[in-house]
Amino acid sequence: MKRRYFSLTSFEDAIRIMKETFPAPGVTERIPLEQAVGRVIAEPVYAPYSVPEVNLSVMDGIAVRSADTQGAMDRNPVTLEHFQRVNTGQVIPQGYDAVIMIEDVWLGDGTCRVRKSAFPGQFIRPAGEDIRKGELVLPRSHIVRPFDIGALATYGITNLLVSSVSIGLIPIGDELVPPGARPKPGGAVESNTLFARHYFSGMGATCYRYPITWDDPESITTALSLAIEEHELVLLFGGSSAGTRDYADQVISSCGTLLFHGVGMKPGTPVMLGSVEGKPVFGVPGFPIAAACVIKEFVARLLEWWGLAPYPIFTIKAELAQRIASDLGYEEFVQISAARVGNRVSVMPHSRGNGVQMSLVRSDGLIQIPASYEGYEAGEEVFVQLTIPPAHLDRNLLVCGARDECIHILGDLLTPRGFSLHCCNTLDSRALVTLREGRCHAASVALPRTGSWMASDLFDTADGTTFMRVTVAEAELGLASRNGVVLDDLTGIRFINRARGLPARTLTDKLLQSSGITPQEVHGYETQAKSEEGVITAIQNDSADAGVCRKKTAEIASLSWTHLGYVSYNLVIPLSCLGDPATISILAILKSGLYRDAVDCIGGYSTAGSGQVSPVFPMVM
Amino acid sequence: MKRRYFSLTSFEDAIRIMKETFPAPGVTERIPLEQAVGRVIAEPVYAPYSVPEVNLSVMDGIAVRSADTQGAMDRNPVTLEHFQRVNTGQVIPQGYDAVIMIEDVWLGDGTCRVRKSAFPGQFIRPAGEDIRKGELVLPRSHIVRPFDIGALATYGITNLLVSSVSIGLIPIGDELVPPGARPKPGGAVESNTLFARHYFSGMGATCYRYPITWDDPESITTALSLAIEEHELVLLFGGSSAGTRDYADQVISSCGTLLFHGVGMKPGTPVMLGSVEGKPVFGVPGFPIAAACVIKEFVARLLEWWGLAPYPIFTIKAELAQRIASDLGYEEFVQISAARVGNRVSVMPHSRGNGVQMSLVRSDGLIQIPASYEGYEAGEEVFVQLTIPPAHLDRNLLVCGARDECIHILGDLLTPRGFSLHCCNTLDSRALVTLREGRCHAASVALPRTGSWMASDLFDTADGTTFMRVTVAEAELGLASRNGVVLDDLTGIRFINRARGLPARTLTDKLLQSSGITPQEVHGYETQAKSEEGVITAIQNDSADAGVCRKKTAEIASLSWTHLGYVSYNLVIPLSCLGDPATISILAILKSGLYRDAVDCIGGYSTAGSGQVSPVFPMVM
Repeated sequence: MKRRYFSLTSFEDAIRIMKETFPAPGVTERIPLEQAVGRVIAEPVYAPYSVPEVNLSVMDGIAVRSADTQGAMDRNPVTLEHFQRVNTGQVIPQGYDAVIMIEDVWLGDGTCRVRKSAFPGQFIRPAGEDIRKGELVLPRSHIVRPFDIGALATYGITNLLVSSVSIGLIPIGDELVPPGARPKPGGAVESNTLFARHYFSGMGATCYRYPITWDDPESITTALSLAIEEHELVLLFGGSSAGTRDYADQVISSCGTLLFHGVGMKPGTPVMLGSVEGKPVFGVPGFPIAAACVIKEFVARLLEWWGLAPYPIFTIKAELAQRIASDLGYEEFVQISAARVGNRVSVMPHSRGNGVQMSLVRSDGLIQIPASYEGYEAGEEVFVQLTIPPAHLDRNLLVCGARDECIHILGDLLTPRGFSLHCCNTLDSRALVTLREGRCHAASVALPRTGSWMASDLFDTADGTTFMRVTVAEAELGLASRNGVVLDDLTGIRFINRARGLPARTLTDKLLQSSGITPQEVHGYETQAKSEEGVITAIQNDSADAGVCRKKTAEIASLSWTHLGYVSYNLVIPLSCLGDPATISILAILKSGLYRDAVDCIGGYSTAGSGQVSPVFPMVM
Repeated sequence: MKRRYFSLTSFEDAIRIMKETFPAPGVTERIPLEQAVGRVIAEPVYAPYSVPEVNLSVMDGIAVRSADTQGAMDRNPVTLEHFQRVNTGQVIPQGYDAVIMIEDVWLGDGTCRVRKSAFPGQFIRPAGEDIRKGELVLPRSHIVRPFDIGALATYGITNLLVSSVSIGLIPIGDELVPPGARPKPGGAVESNTLFARHYFSGMGATCYRYPITWDDPESITTALSLAIEEHELVLLFGGSSAGTRDYADQVISSCGTLLFHGVGMKPGTPVMLGSVEGKPVFGVPGFPIAAACVIKEFVARLLEWWGLAPYPIFTIKAELAQRIASDLGYEEFVQISAARVGNRVSVMPHSRGNGVQMSLVRSDGLIQIPASYEGYEAGEEVFVQLTIPPAHLDRNLLVCGARDECIHILGDLLTPRGFSLHCCNTLDSRALVTLREGRCHAASVALPRTGSWMASDLFDTADGTTFMRVTVAEAELGLASRNGVVLDDLTGIRFINRARGLPARTLTDKLLQSSGITPQEVHGYETQAKSEEGVITAIQNDSADAGVCRKKTAEIASLSWTHLGYVSYNLVIPLSCLGDPATISILAILKSGLYRDAVDCIGGYSTAGSGQVSPVFPMVM
C-alpha cells in the first residue's frame, strides 16, 4: 500500500547522471534586438559597416590639409587657400586631413590665417574608430546586457540568433486550483508553474504552462506525451513522492526510462528524472519549497549547462548567527535572512518546514550544506547565495526571537525610513545568546508583564548588562474553554499546554506557581499544541478542556475566555545602539499613532507602553 | 560663437542638488501578480486566508482522538472505536486531533488496533502553519522575486500595488536615424533611448520613447512641453554639450530652471539638470558612452532614491592590472575587463574614448575613480561594479596587448569550450610587464617574423625566462601609395608613420635599419596616423605619399601596395600554463581548420605557423 524509495541517489551522482545523459540540444531562435536582453548569443556578430563610416571632426573649427600648415606659429601665421568650416561631428570634406580649432583661426574675407601647424589626423575621429566593417562585435555565449542592445543598434544590427530552450510545465493534483481561484479546504493554489516560468524566463527559456492534470496515470501519460513532442524539457509538478496517489514515476517508466527517483537532498528528496524520447523529464515534488529547490538546483543547472544565462544570484561570504544541524547524506539548502551586523554579514536560518512557503518570502538567500556535513556551528563562515541586492544587506535589521504580529507591523512601518526588519523565529533564550555574541541587531523577547527586568531574567550569567529593552506591545492572554474555566479549575480538567519558552507557557508557569499549583496536579500539562490554533482545535475536538491563547483567537472560535494576565513583547538591544538611526526610527514608530492604530486593529494587544525604553538591571534591586 | 560651461559642478554637489530638489513623487500603480517580478511593493500585503485553512494529515494513516490512545503499547494494543482513514495532505475530519501512521495500525473488520499512543497534533499540519489570515506577507519596499510570485499566488493574491515612475525619453539630433535605418555618412543610429528603456525597465520604471526631434529650440520646446505633462521625469538626449547647435540648456532655462550644466565627471561632463513644472529634466550627452554613464550615475540613482529597485549590479574587490591616470576634479567611470588570474581578480581598463561604444560591449564592469584621486597604481585594490555574472570571472581569459582580428576569431572559437577571451589594447611593452607581474593570463605581442625570440626582444631585463610564445597568425605588411612606392623610395617622398610599439612601426624601423636608411632621411617619419585607415586617408588626401598597411586595406582603397615583410602575432604565456585547459584549447583551435578558414576570410594573414609553440630564449643563441 505504501511505497518507499528503494535507495537515494546522492546529489552529486544525480547531477552527474543528468549532465551525462542530456547534452545541450543546441536549439536556437532568431529574435528582434529589442527582446534580446538576458539572452545568450548563439553565433558571432560582425559589424555590417564601420562606425563612424567616414572621418569626422571632433571640434568646431576648420578642416585643412595638414601639409599646408607646416611652419605656422604665433609670430608666423600662415594664410590658407584651401579650408572648410566644420562643426563637431560633421564629416571632414574630401581632400582635408586635419582640423584646427576655431580659437586658433583668424577668418577674414574668404581667407583664413592659422597660427599653429596641424598634424595629419588632428582633431579627427577616424573612420572605423569605434568598429570596422566585418569586425567582431560579440562572440558566441555572450549574455546580452542593456548597453549591448544600444551598441548593436548603433552598428545596424536588428536581430540576433540566440540559444533557446522550450520547457513544458505540467501541474498534477486533484487538490489544485489555478491562481486566482479559492481552493477548497485541503486544496491549494497551483503556484509552482508560475514560479518556474518566471525563473526560467529570467534565464532566457520559453515556458508553456499546461492545464492542471488529474492525479491518475492516464491523464498524466496523455499530458506528458503531448508535451514531450513540443518541448526540449518537461517538468511534472506533484505526484512525485511515495504516497498512494503518486503516479509520476510509473508514467515516466512506462513512457521511457526512469534514471533516478529520490535524491539525498533537502528539500526536494522525492525528485525524479527520466528520459522520454531522449528528452529529460523531471518529476518535481509538489510542495512549493521543494519544487523551488529542484527548479534551482537541478533544472536551472541543466539549462545553464545547456548554455542559457545563469539566473542572477550573488554569492557572498557570511557568518552563521546560530548553529544549524543537517542530516548526513543529504545536501541541504536552507533559506536564511542576512544583514550586516557590525563589520560582518550575519545569517540566520529560517524554518525548514516543507509546508512553510513563507520561508521563501522571508528569506534573503540560501546556504548549501554539503551531504558530508552534520551542520555548521555559530560563527562559522558560510557562502550565501543572495536573492536580494547585496546593497540591501546594509538596510536589513536582523532580529532573533519571538515573531509576533506587532513585530511585522513595526517592520512594515520601518521600510519608508530605509530599514528592512527580518525576524527569525527562535526561542528567547537562543535569541539572547545570539544577541550577546553580536550576531544580530536585537532579540525579540516575550516575558510576563513585570515592573523591571533583571539580567537574570534574560541571561544565564548575570555578570552586569549592557542591554536595554524596548517595549513593542503587551498581549493579553487568557484561558480558552467551552465552559468558562478559570485558573483554579486547572487541577480538575484536561489542559493543553504550549512549548517551553513561549509566552503562554511562561505565563502559565508563573501563575501556577503563585497559586501554589504544581505541574503534576494539572492533567495534560505535558501535552503541547504547536500553535494557538492547535489549542483551539484540541478544545473543539474534546481532546482538552482548556488552554491559553489571546482573547481574539478564542472569540473567533466561539469559545469562552477568562483573563489570565499580560505578556510583554520587547526588543532587547545593546545600550550602545541607543543613538543609532535604526533605534531612533524604531522608538519613533512604536510611539506613533500609525503603529498603535495598526496594532489595535489586530485586537488583544495593549500599546500603552509601546516605545518605552527600560534598562535591564544587572542584579535584583 | 562657441560657448563654454561657466564652471563645473562637482559630482557630489550635483547628486546632492538632484536629491534635494526632487523628492519621490510617490506614484503607484496596481498590476497583475504575473507582471510584478522586479517591481517594488508600495503597500503592505496581508494574507486573505490562512494556509492551510484547516488541519491536514502529513502521513498516510488514521485520524484518531489522541485521548482514546492513551496507554497503547506493543504489549498493550488499544482498540479504537472512533477513527478515520486519511492520506497525506487530506483534511483531518472533525472530532480528531492526531494521526497514527498506517505502519503502526492493525486494521480489521471495521475495527482498528494501535500499539502507540498519540499526542494532540501528532502528524498534523495545523491550520495557519504557513500563514494566518490577516498576517503580513510582504512589507512595503520589498522587491518582488520569482518565488514571491509563487507564494503570493498560493495565498490568493492576484494583484499588487507597486511603485511606478513614468519616464519620457526624447532623442535630439538632425544626424540621427531610428534603429534599423542606415545612417548617412556622419549620421548615427539613435540608440540611447533604446538602452535607457531597457535599463529603466529593469528597475521597474515605464518608459516612452518619443520620435527623434530636430536640433532647433522650437522643436525641442514642443517635445519637452508635451513630455513633461505625461511623465514624472524627462530625459533629453543630445544637444547638451557646448557646440553651436546645442539648445537643450536654452530650452530648459526658458521652460523652467536650469539647476546645473556641466559636472566634474567623465564621461558625461556636459550633463545638465533642470526643473520644469517641478519635475526633473535631464540633458543627457548624445555620445552613447557618456549617455550610459549619466543614465547609471544620475538617473538610476534618482529612481532608486525614489524607491524603485536597483539595477542588479554586483560589486567585488579586485586588483588593477595596470596603472590608470585620472584628472583631478573629475569623478571618472572606467570600463574594465576582469578575470580571476591565480588567486586574485585582476582588472584591465578599456579605451576611454567617448566615441568607442565598443568599450561598453567589451567591458565586464566599471570602476569609479573619485574626483580627489589622480588615478590608481597597478596592483591597487579597487571596487568593480560587475555587469557579468560573478561566476564568469572564472571563465574569462585576460589578454593584454595587440588586439588583432585573429585574436577575436580565437576568442569566438574559445567560447564553446567554456572560455571567454578579453583582449585589452595596450602597447606590447606594457602588456609584457603586466604578464610578468602575474596580472593577466597572456600578452598579445606582435614582432617582425624571426627565427626565434629572445627574452631581450620582450623584456628590458632578460634575467632568464619562464615564458613560451604561441603563434596566432602572421600578417603581411607592405607600402601603400598612389604610385607603387618601394622601401628605397622612402628618402625621396612624404611618409606617414605609425606609433611606436605597433607592428607596422617596428617592421619599418627594422627594414630601414637593414637598408641603412636613418629616420632623419625619411620625410614625415615623425607623423603618426592613428589607424591603418588614417594612413589610407592621408595618402588619398595627398598629405602623404606612402605608409605601411596590410594588402587588403590598400586594395579596398584602390591604392597600390608593395610587400615589405611579415609580422608575427603571438600570445606570450607562462610556461607553467602549458598543460592548462585554456592553453590546450587555444592550441587546438589555432591548429583547427575552422580557425584557419575564418582567418583566411579576412585576408592578408598566413596561418601556416598558427598554434606553434616556441620557447622564449633567455639569451642570444
